[in-house]
Parts: sequence; C-alpha cells; structure tokens
Amino acid sequence: MFTIKESTTKTVDVGGTPFTYREAGTAEGVPLVLLHHVTAMLDDWDPAVVDGLAAERRLILVNLRGVGGSGGTTPDSFEAMADDAVAFLKALGLGPVDLLGYSLGGIVAQVIAQEHPALVRRIILAATTPAGAPGPAATGAVLQAAIQKATSEGKHPKHYLFFEQSATGQAAADAFLARLDERTQDRDTPVSNETIGAQLTALTTWEKDTSPTGLASVEQPVLVVNGDNDTMWPTSGTIQLAQLLPNAKLAIYPDSGHGGIFQYHELFVQQALAFLRD
Amino acid sequence: MFTIKESTTKTVDVGGTPFTYREAGTAEGVPLVLLHHVTAMLDDWDPAVVDGLAAERRLILVNLRGVGGSGGTTPDSFEAMADDAVAFLKALGLGPVDLLGYSLGGIVAQVIAQEHPALVRRIILAATTPAGAPGPAATGAVLQAAIQKATSEGKHPKHYLFFEQSATGQAAADAFLARLDERTQDRDTPVSNETIGAQLTALTTWEKDTSPTGLASVEQPVLVVNGDNDTMWPTSGTIQLAQLLPNAKLAIYPDSGHGGIFQYHELFVQQALAFLRD
Repeated sequence: MFTIKESTTKTVDVGGTPFTYREAGTAEGVPLVLLHHVTAMLDDWDPAVVDGLAAERRLILVNLRGVGGSGGTTPDSFEAMADDAVAFLKALGLGPVDLLGYSLGGIVAQVIAQEHPALVRRIILAATTPAGAPGPAATGAVLQAAIQKATSEGKHPKHYLFFEQSATGQAAADAFLARLDERTQDRDTPVSNETIGAQLTALTTWEKDTSPTGLASVEQPVLVVNGDNDTMWPTSGTIQLAQLLPNAKLAIYPDSGHGGIFQYHELFVQQALAFLRD
Repeated sequence: MFTIKESTTKTVDVGGTPFTYREAGTAEGVPLVLLHHVTAMLDDWDPAVVDGLAAERRLILVNLRGVGGSGGTTPDSFEAMADDAVAFLKALGLGPVDLLGYSLGGIVAQVIAQEHPALVRRIILAATTPAGAPGPAATGAVLQAAIQKATSEGKHPKHYLFFEQSATGQAAADAFLARLDERTQDRDTPVSNETIGAQLTALTTWEKDTSPTGLASVEQPVLVVNGDNDTMWPTSGTIQLAQLLPNAKLAIYPDSGHGGIFQYHELFVQQALAFLRD
C-alpha cells in the first residue's frame, strides 16, 4: 500500500482531453473511485479518509473534465459529468468499480449507477441528496456567504460549510484543514470560476428535477452517510436518498454537518471498509 | 466507580409499592436513569452499555411498577408509567436527572419530558418512536412470532427482534446475549404475562395517538439513536422523532436493528457520554 501523500498526479487521455488522477492503496481488488465535491480538486480529499480506505482498497481519485489539472470545459449537467467519469474509467480499462461520491460527486455517482449499472459493484454516497430535494440550487449563495464570512473572520469557508459552529465542530474543521495541507509538493490546480459556474448550473437543475424515482432501479448495495445537521443540503435529503434506494444502509453521525465523514474519519473508514468487504 | 455486575438490587418505597433498582458508576453528578423495554427487567440491560456509561456517570436502573422485582400492577398507559417513574425519582430524592429510554422506555421518557420538564436535564432516546408512528401496535404479534421461531430454532427471541439476520447481526446477538448472562447472582424476576399485556395495550394506544406534536415543547437536548433497519418499530419513526424534537441530535448505525445500541455498544457509549458531557 502507498499513501495519497506519496502518490504522484497522473494523466490519462480521455477522448482527446487529459484527465488527471491519483492512486493510493493496494494494487489488487475492485478499485474504489472517488468523485469530488463542488469547487474541489484532488487536494481536497481528506488524507485520513483516503489513507484509511487505502489500507484495504485500490483507490483512484479523479478530476472530472475542466476540474483541477484536467483539461476541457466542465459540463453543466450531471449526465455529462457521469459520461465523463465513465469515459475515464474506460480509458484506464477499469470496471466494474466501487464508487465513493461525496456531495456533488455523490450526484455523479447516482447518475452513473442509473445509466451504467454494469460498471458499478457497490456505492458509497456521502453528504449528498436525491434529485428534487432542497439544497443544491442554493449552493452558490451558500458558498458566497461562507467565502465572505471566511474572509472577514480569517477562516476557511469550509469552517462554515462542512462543520458545526460548536467548539467540537470547529476543532474538527481545524484538524481537517491541517490534513489537507499535509501535501506540500505536486499540488493540484484550483478550479476556475467557470468550472464552479457550470457545477452550480448542474446543481440547480438537479434540485428542479422531479424524477428521483430512477433510484428504485439501482440494485447495488449502497451505503448512505451524512452528519445529522448538514446545513448545505439538509440531512433530510440524505435520509430520503436512503429510503429511495432499494438496497441502502444508512449511517448518520451526531454533532456534525456536510463534512461528517471527515469529522468522524475513523468511524467512516471503518463503516465504509466493512460495507465494501461484505 | 462500580460495575453493574457488582451492584446489588435495592428497593425503595414508592407510595406504598416497593420499586426495585440497581446503581452503577460514579457517586456524583447528574444521575442517568435507565428506562427499560417491553418485557424487560433489570437483567436485560447490556452490561457493556451500562458499565461503559458508568465510567463517567451515576447510573440508576429501575423496574417500573409491576416489572421484575417491583411490586404493584403495571399500568396500561404511558402517562401512568411516566407518573410512576417520577414518583420513583422523588422517592429517591433525585432531580433533575438525565434519562436514557430504550424502546418502550423511550416512550416513557418522551412523556416525562412533556409532563415533567423541570425534572429532566438531557435525554437519550434509543430505538423508540413518536406517538402515531407505525410499529408499537404490532409489538404483540411480532413478539409472538419471534418466540415461536426461537423455540423451533433453539434461539433466543432477541436474535430476531433486536438484530439483523446477517452473519454479523447474529454474531452481535450471540455476544449481547452472552453479556446478559454474565450476572449469575441476585438475578431479577422475569416479567409476568399480565405485565406484558398492560405494556402492549399502552403501545397500541401510543400508535393510535394522533398528537406527537407535544414533542415540539421539549426544550432539552435529546440524542436520538437507532439501527438503520429496525424491524420492530421502523427506523423512519426514529428519524421522525428527531425531526419533531426542536433540539435533537441523531445517530443511525448501519447494518443493525432495534438492538443497534447493543451491537455498537462502544460507539453508542462514546456518543452518549459526549452528549451528556457537553
């Protein structure tokens, strides 16, 4: 096994566009593909979560089209993002795979599971929400408010977006952000405003979507996880997601928000590995 | 601190009726009072949970009226059970207290919180459900089916009632049942069929109750906990309970049922102590 900190950033050609990715973990077994959140690139994955999972799995972290060091222009629909993710998997000759989709990445994973079921073995959906549930359309406004607050208070926006405002929550935020800074070399490129704009358009469409019932066709086992007080996309959506999926397990962590899997990284890693191992 | 295994069964006079109880844990601090499930008496509390909590708290486990070694006849309403619990606390000169209500005990705790708010500081509600949610009225039928199955398969009914039927769930059941057998002396008296009948009547009334909105008046912090696949009283009721309480935290454990707090006793103890400590 090698850790994510030691992993160099690689590039694969996906239909003429270079997609960047990193690998960690064991060399064998069904790969676990990590799909990132809105505004995120490879450096935004918590090393505690990645290395915890890498103890047992082969991990692949990818920047979708137009994200971080990947080329091309980020599309403004989840169907297109899912097609890009599938094209990336095919370019690497992978499949079937396990998916871990966090937030926006969890929506991409939901679409992949519905459109390309043969490619997917098991799915972990963290801090995400089904089509039609409230939250995603307000993401732009919530990001803006967090950035303003962060600037005026000398903090990182994720202090507000991912964690509770309690002492415990803010200590977890500090620890999480320190872990993100552990990697000092071969850092990824921040996403552009154009990319964020396309992602926000896709999110607005997702909230207006009135057909979450496609989830009933997802036969794969799914582990659905979130904090109990997600202020970005309400935890009620996470719970609805678990109820819409025919074969879902649910884990909810108290005293935590959108970043619950980072705050409780040891517990999440333990539950995720047990779920993937079954 | 002393453990529950070392604790002798004590008796206190509650308005002319002897109530039996046991104590564990530290001598100081706000007491945590444990309220039992349907059919249960003092020996039904998992020593792993009790001793885990006793590491930081003063614990009091009580048999309500007509239960186990307590005298009197079990009433067939939760209002009367709550009044009995309050009279017991007063007889011991206790209050305000923290409550841990499991299953039926969680309903008693909900009623105490609504009727006697000044007596309660914090509340943990495990594997329980608000008035009007489905599950409680079918408890008698579910118990009967589990007892029949247990008899024919040489198992304990709790193998079916509290745990998943997976290998992991059944191993957790075996471990839980072994822990209940650790106490060899000063065992409690099994409950009578008359007591179970009264409890089942109260449960049927609870499910018919159309006014769970009284929970909106509960200002205390509440930790609501359950397994993600409770087949006795569906987990959706637990989630509804957390949504109805204005100041609730929620914890849901994957791969587990009504006995989730026993299956994940270490995690539950950790979360419960953090919640009570705050």
